[in-house]
Amino acid sequence: MADNKKMVEQITDMEQDFAQWYTDVCTKADLIGYTSVKGMFILRPYGYAIWENIQREMDARFKATGHTNVAMPLLIPESLLQKEKDHVEGFAPECAWVTMGGSEKLDERLCVRPTSETLFCEHWSQIVHSWRDLPLLYNQWCSVLRWEKTTRPFLRHREFLWQEGHTLHATAQEAIEETERMLNVYADVCENILAMPVVKGIKTDKEKFAGAERTYTIECMMHDRKALQNGTSHYFGDGFAKAFGITFTDKDNVQKTPFETSWGFTTRTIGGVIMTHGDNSGLVLPPKVAPIQVVVIPVAGHKPGVMEANQAVVDALTAAGFRVKMDASDKAPGWKFAEYEMKGVPLRLELGPKDMEKNQCVLVRRDNGEESFVSLDGIEKTVADTLQAVHDGLFAKAKRNLDEHCYPAFSLEEAKALQLERGGFIKTMWCGDADCEERMKAEAGMSSRCIPFDQEHLADVCPICGKPAKHMVYWGVAY
Amino acid sequence: MADNKKMVEQITDMEQDFAQWYTDVCTKADLIGYTSVKGMFILRPYGYAIWENIQREMDARFKATGHTNVAMPLLIPESLLQKEKDHVEGFAPECAWVTMGGSEKLDERLCVRPTSETLFCEHWSQIVHSWRDLPLLYNQWCSVLRWEKTTRPFLRHREFLWQEGHTLHATAQEAIEETERMLNVYADVCENILAMPVVKGIKTDKEKFAGAERTYTIECMMHDRKALQNGTSHYFGDGFAKAFGITFTDKDNVQKTPFETSWGFTTRTIGGVIMTHGDNSGLVLPPKVAPIQVVVIPVAGHKPGVMEANQAVVDALTAAGFRVKMDASDKAPGWKFAEYEMKGVPLRLELGPKDMEKNQCVLVRRDNGEESFVSLDGIEKTVADTLQAVHDGLFAKAKRNLDEHCYPAFSLEEAKALQLERGGFIKTMWCGDADCEERMKAEAGMSSRCIPFDQEHLADVCPICGKPAKHMVYWGVAY
Repeated sequence: MADNKKMVEQITDMEQDFAQWYTDVCTKADLIGYTSVKGMFILRPYGYAIWENIQREMDARFKATGHTNVAMPLLIPESLLQKEKDHVEGFAPECAWVTMGGSEKLDERLCVRPTSETLFCEHWSQIVHSWRDLPLLYNQWCSVLRWEKTTRPFLRHREFLWQEGHTLHATAQEAIEETERMLNVYADVCENILAMPVVKGIKTDKEKFAGAERTYTIECMMHDRKALQNGTSHYFGDGFAKAFGITFTDKDNVQKTPFETSWGFTTRTIGGVIMTHGDNSGLVLPPKVAPIQVVVIPVAGHKPGVMEANQAVVDALTAAGFRVKMDASDKAPGWKFAEYEMKGVPLRLELGPKDMEKNQCVLVRRDNGEESFVSLDGIEKTVADTLQAVHDGLFAKAKRNLDEHCYPAFSLEEAKALQLERGGFIKTMWCGDADCEERMKAEAGMSSRCIPFDQEHLADVCPICGKPAKHMVYWGVAY
Repeated sequence: MADNKKMVEQITDMEQDFAQWYTDVCTKADLIGYTSVKGMFILRPYGYAIWENIQREMDARFKATGHTNVAMPLLIPESLLQKEKDHVEGFAPECAWVTMGGSEKLDERLCVRPTSETLFCEHWSQIVHSWRDLPLLYNQWCSVLRWEKTTRPFLRHREFLWQEGHTLHATAQEAIEETERMLNVYADVCENILAMPVVKGIKTDKEKFAGAERTYTIECMMHDRKALQNGTSHYFGDGFAKAFGITFTDKDNVQKTPFETSWGFTTRTIGGVIMTHGDNSGLVLPPKVAPIQVVVIPVAGHKPGVMEANQAVVDALTAAGFRVKMDASDKAPGWKFAEYEMKGVPLRLELGPKDMEKNQCVLVRRDNGEESFVSLDGIEKTVADTLQAVHDGLFAKAKRNLDEHCYPAFSLEEAKALQLERGGFIKTMWCGDADCEERMKAEAGMSSRCIPFDQEHLADVCPICGKPAKHMVYWGVAY
């Protein structure tokens, strides 16, 4: 296929310029459109269909864990945003403000939601009275705005799509369990649906969400060995509830303050999918979210019976629940091959007169280019197995990339050198002091990614300051 | 059940004050929450779940007719909104404007989308080149803002949820067919999913969408005989495409301008459902969108085997695909009955020790209060049939309300008197002149609802001016 690979639309090789390769994939696989407002991107049909598939998987898991969806307003009055001090400090600098409604100047300016904690809290302060009203397990699918200076498709939009879960609990214990439960849901979707291995851990205070007591995160490693934060889950304690005056009468008839969580997962994960699995032929999609799982390409479609045989395969696979597209256009086979490779379709199925004679077809895997002749009998089972093999292959490859690029370091200099020479996650002990974090950032260009759940004892002291170590930290260069 | 009806939360009788009854249902059935910004309502879990069910039905129909979903930006630069003259005149007065991003004043203010024609057109002007690129059949699910002065739950929000379909075609003929196709999809969902009979027709020029050449509408009659516009589909001709410079090279190698449509359906339809089917006990939900289709209430749940028998019914119905909830709480049966009546649950199933002896349960229909003893054998089929009967009963009742309150009138005075005395839709001939429409509004308080597809010849002349009649029009007092 090598000759055809670059026939459709030339894309930059990733080894030559990873950033340009990424942008090429976003635009030439028809995922993203640019608009006249910086940082506000269009999710084109093919890009949005990936998000719809992710949404469906996520939403089913949210509902299975007892959550219900709601719709909160788009706009937040400035006074409401200001009720929680840390929260407003974190978000106010990147708010977009509505100041006019129709031809009238508003009395109070309204922020386009950057996140909705304040709205949920205001609502809960009105509807929560008794322990019987708890827990409240809410989620919403929407877009949020953050007026970022630097923007990139999927990775950093001024407007992005996400879900934000918000829950309220009678006890701290229950809220912490919820925070961890939803982190595990995110990890499950990343690993088992998106084929992206994750490192689970806790953010340092410096990196946690504005207003949170504790932020859990899943961190992924991209093909270029940079880190992508791919979903966070926050435990708020009772801070927000106190700021908003939410109380409930508990079983013991005592008035108490409840505990809160929130958790979010965004379209940036699509950027992560691109940078985890993609190659120099374009996008490589994990089968479970690919808008087209199998593209069927008739060979010599003008010959008797060929179109009918292809249609029969399409019908059988569609009936079995696969997302299938047949391309019977008059474009050259080589063009078609390159086009669906660019779009990351996990499996290509070719069927022509010679195959028909042998009751077989050709299956070509997008992830490794492997071609095989398979029987048309039981094609549904073969396709299911092959798609699973593609998923497993993608996961294994990404896991190898992650595992092979995690290096322990025992001094700041070593950490810096490892990042420069090899990239990836550098793991060191850490005293817990923000000053050491700042130094790592300033001198080695790395932020703390997380304090991973899987702790190792590398040494007794923090390699930055020499004081006793509290945790092992993963450091990296982050998107 | 009469004694229990008002036990949960008192609501106003609709005969006493229809508007207050409506607001009571919205708030006490937990559909809507108020916020500190006027006209920006919360769709609470129970209200949002109805919307999710409507979305699922709509979205399946959109996809079956070849449409794909996309996500366009939230914000529209003022200069972009101004490109189509009629459109900006219609929408600018009710735009909310973002003027600040972070701490900086924006060079150009950005409108929070009231509708997205301009964004689709800008995008299409970049991606459309050849007849091969057409048609483009796009849809998006999102919220839009219109800075209304008067607001009411569901019926008139400053922010409301909707879908907006936008399509682009090589020929006018094809675009008109699309406009009509999507109107029929709306009518299908209204009648067959929401049990709301519709009148299909075309809006007069005065009432059509800003920038449209022709607007199709479905109009419904509420219980108080007022009209609700419940979905519109617009044919734009090539007006927008010309304003945005969208062209394509046709098969004959000639550069041409394509033709456009858009169509929208909003959460206001939930207001319509409430006012079509509701009664003095609260909400009455059409089974196909009810978040809970069957509520199962164990009778004497403490007696041996009762909970198990109830759980078995819940499991059987859930496995059969119904949305079922069991309320085994310690609340009084009367409270439960009233609660689920208020929430409009189509079927209540009661099962206690005496029923178990007879291998039966009690089914109570929300729409007409009918109780019946039915066998537990084949309960899935019985429930399916009864839910269909509820749907049919709701539709028949609403159709009767519509049919019985459509009156022909042959003078302005008669039209005015009929509306005052009986309400409903008044049908008259019409010359096609906007002046006569204005007079009907000024003197009889009615706007034109539509020029219905089903035309009748009531007379030769317009009863308002006496000039020759062009169409028969439906007039009404609209929400």
